[in-house]
Amino acid sequence: MNLGRIVGMVVATRKEPSVEGLKFQLVRYIDENGKETGAEVVAVDTVGAGPGEVVLVATGSSARQTVLTQNRPCDAVIMAIVDSWDVRGETKYRKTEER
Amino acid sequence: MNLGRIVGMVVATRKEPSVEGLKFQLVRYIDENGKETGAEVVAVDTVGAGPGEVVLVATGSSARQTVLTQNRPCDAVIMAIVDSWDVRGETKYRKTEER
Amino acid sequence: MNLGRIVGMVVATRKEPSVEGLKFQLVRYIDENGKETGAEVVAVDTVGAGPGEVVLVATGSSARQTVLTQNRPCDAVIMAIVDSWDVRGETKYRKTEER
Amino acid sequence: MNLGRIVGMVVATRKEPSVEGLKFQLVRYIDENGKETGAEVVAVDTVGAGPGEVVLVATGSSARQTVLTQNRPCDAVIMAIVDSWDVRGETKYRKTEER
Amino acid sequence: MNLGRIVGMVVATRKEPSVEGLKFQLVRYIDENGKETGAEVVAVDTVGAGPGEVVLVATGSSARQTVLTQNRPCDAVIMAIVDSWDVRGETKYRKTEER
Repeated sequence: MNLGRIVGMVVATRKEPSVEGLKFQLVRYIDENGKETGAEVVAVDTVGAGPGEVVLVATGSSARQTVLTQNRPCDAVIMAIVDSWDVRGETKYRKTEER
Repeated sequence: MNLGRIVGMVVATRKEPSVEGLKFQLVRYIDENGKETGAEVVAVDTVGAGPGEVVLVATGSSARQTVLTQNRPCDAVIMAIVDSWDVRGETKYRKTEER
Repeated sequence: MNLGRIVGMVVATRKEPSVEGLKFQLVRYIDENGKETGAEVVAVDTVGAGPGEVVLVATGSSARQTVLTQNRPCDAVIMAIVDSWDVRGETKYRKTEER
Repeated sequence: MNLGRIVGMVVATRKEPSVEGLKFQLVRYIDENGKETGAEVVAVDTVGAGPGEVVLVATGSSARQTVLTQNRPCDAVIMAIVDSWDVRGETKYRKTEER
Repeated sequence: MNLGRIVGMVVATRKEPSVEGLKFQLVRYIDENGKETGAEVVAVDTVGAGPGEVVLVATGSSARQTVLTQNRPCDAVIMAIVDSWDVRGETKYRKTEER
């Protein structure tokens, strides 16, 4: 998984029928310091995450291991909203502080 | 998934029998500002997308989760035509504006 | 899939029994202008492609979706020989012109 | 697999129900000299690895081939704690020396 | 698949039970000229390859398509020992010459 921050949403009316109803979030990947890496991904939200939230993104076939995305042409999924993380004992991010 | 813009088509007469009839689109990846990243991919179209259209591309095994591509040696699929997206509340792309 | 040009062949006598008989082609990836990107891959040929030919390469689990490669430790397959492609209406490559 | 060093942990309360109870470790990838490559990954621990330990990380669908991660949206797993490795006969890392 | 050269071995006592007994080789990727690319991978040996040998490495789910690695958290496998390869008719590597 990789850390990312939701910065927007992608709207697509014409699409594969099986992805109907899925929410496509635009996610910027961030590193352990919360800094954006420059890479981004469009991921399906499965946990009700909103704009600005820091999340975990799983990609590849693992992105289909949820009830929402199973057997669908989806290769990136938001499977957790991050509360906090630490690096060598130092808290690098805590959700309530940042928002 | 990643954002991309269709810029051309690849024609291949001699191919694996199972990919017969599939349409191979040449897609340039774009970032959240609609700027080309320099990377490109040949993706099978499953939604009737045409040249110049902005699309979502799914890769890997997820590219085979459509009726057209199931059990076929296809690792990239266009599974949605993008109408619009926003970043931090600002609309970055809207289909009718651009074409 | 990605565009590539076959530049050589890899010979391996001692190998996993299940890949016995497969032809390992050395492929240089090319971009939409036919220019080599610097990346290369060893791919199993499933369409009878020869040296110098421009091909489409599928990677990952999709490389196993052919009769030849099914259930084998093969992560890259040549699944089409490219006749031509165009970018924004301009023909960038045509097979008979180049060879 | 790739070598990595555990440097922290990610806490996420709201998540896909199927990943409940999994431990998300923050891992920095290292090269054969033990030097960090700059890339990092959040991986599920399956072997009881702790902070500072050098581990092997498997990614993609292979990350789901453990009892803990099976059928879960998990794309990176710690599947071994590294004792040592050598390069051209020279020991480059030994666990007890470093900690 | 990609070309690589075995340069060492990784020892791990504490690991996922299912990978017990597997041999983890440290492989440096090489290009068509036999030059190291700077990337490396830890791959499970399935063909009895030894230090210094040039091999083919398959990654992803394809790394699990061998008797040794089936259903195991293994994402890279050595599935062939390379005898030789050529580029545009010129032999670039031959096993007996190099060792």
